[in-house]
Amino acid sequence: MECCDLTKNNIGSYKFLAEPFHVDCTGRLTLSIVGNHLLNCAGMHAAKRGFGITDLNEHHYTWVLSRLAMEFECLPMQYDEFSIDTWVEAVYSLFTDRNFSIHNAKGEAIGYARSVWAMIDLDSRRPVNLVTMHEGHINDYICTERECPIEKPGRVKVMATEPVYSFSAKYSDIDINGHVNSVRYIEHILDLLPLEKHKEERVKRFEIAYITESYFGDQLDMYMDEEADRNAYQVEIRKHFTGEVVCRAKMVFVKKGT
Amino acid sequence: MECCDLTKNNIGSYKFLAEPFHVDCTGRLTLSIVGNHLLNCAGMHAAKRGFGITDLNEHHYTWVLSRLAMEFECLPMQYDEFSIDTWVEAVYSLFTDRNFSIHNAKGEAIGYARSVWAMIDLDSRRPVNLVTMHEGHINDYICTERECPIEKPGRVKVMATEPVYSFSAKYSDIDINGHVNSVRYIEHILDLLPLEKHKEERVKRFEIAYITESYFGDQLDMYMDEEADRNAYQVEIRKHFTGEVVCRAKMVFVKKGT
Repeated sequence: MECCDLTKNNIGSYKFLAEPFHVDCTGRLTLSIVGNHLLNCAGMHAAKRGFGITDLNEHHYTWVLSRLAMEFECLPMQYDEFSIDTWVEAVYSLFTDRNFSIHNAKGEAIGYARSVWAMIDLDSRRPVNLVTMHEGHINDYICTERECPIEKPGRVKVMATEPVYSFSAKYSDIDINGHVNSVRYIEHILDLLPLEKHKEERVKRFEIAYITESYFGDQLDMYMDEEADRNAYQVEIRKHFTGEVVCRAKMVFVKKGT
Repeated sequence: MECCDLTKNNIGSYKFLAEPFHVDCTGRLTLSIVGNHLLNCAGMHAAKRGFGITDLNEHHYTWVLSRLAMEFECLPMQYDEFSIDTWVEAVYSLFTDRNFSIHNAKGEAIGYARSVWAMIDLDSRRPVNLVTMHEGHINDYICTERECPIEKPGRVKVMATEPVYSFSAKYSDIDINGHVNSVRYIEHILDLLPLEKHKEERVKRFEIAYITESYFGDQLDMYMDEEADRNAYQVEIRKHFTGEVVCRAKMVFVKKGT
């Protein structure tokens, strides 16, 4: 639930309430819901500055999410108020870095996220030089005042040769663009681990790189490596028939209370 | 996004915005998201009057959703503002009827819903006489001023003997009570039909009766009858190993524009 959009120093700030159907078996907000909120905040903040999806579409461009990394000390519980701040850290010719901080009701930071976006041409699907839009004004929205004290998304490599799970993309997976939506992949990845794992431990860091779109009816195979000594899991989703990599992700768990 | 809770004449009214990740391939809000919003509104309205889940839990009671029926002329599109009104129509000894109307940004009704709730004892799981709580004050909140011009949830009977689909309940399906959450069943049922069906037609009426809880790891078989002459589908979800019926639902489709 977002009820205000405050902007100061190029930082967008949005308030939320953790809804009952958005929490998991432990009563904590799920990472797919957090991802949903982060991407909505990105959209709202960009739109306020003339760089939203609708603005880009007028020029036959669109934003494409390339990478997302989220790291939490704790997550909001059911009915908790929380807020998300977001700002643009850097603009390169083909990518822009947008960061987030997540705050509890007292305003204390409980997590951070980093995202990387490309702007593509809707017809050619090729990347577009970001600074050509609005005469380079996107640089006016860079925020230099905030730190984002988590690592940038890194490289994920999966060695597994047999999938641990396979599914077919369904109606509920598909967004308005006809693709499996970014947040659904996060759910499918979290679902690879049993409920007990999510009850006894928590995901401290989740990162995902989006490589290729997938569509309704695509059979998607999920490959997973476990790094037992680091309590981490690396996941790759590939299209079954073409072998194309759709996305790669990494989950790092910690025991509750750490 | 809900930003205000107006109550007048025992009717709760809540405002929302249709978020990008909440719409389907046609850009319309999904019925599972609508269901989520309806149930949140029910919770908020009941809580304002001392009959929320938290209030009931103090007495070792809780609300259990028994039936939900939703019927729409159209659904909100991405970024549309919409609102939901909710009111209690009737209170019986073991059940209460709560209705909803859904309105577009102009305030015109675009859909209605009816829900039936039971109050149960958390320890025995048995129904509780609703009028014994708060000395019968629940009757003070009945609204006699609004009509809900859709049929009450009806009886669904499925004759199919072989499942059309089977799935195992996963982490993302499970709510804070450890059950598959009410809204997830709606998604799984909508997912039985191909994308083309949802693109070319729309669900005019969706009703669901919740019979038995299911849990993480339960293998759930989905049985479906098609009533071709009525463009309707009746679905039953049963636990694979015990045959227990978990829920029954009916979807009535119409061509777009009707």
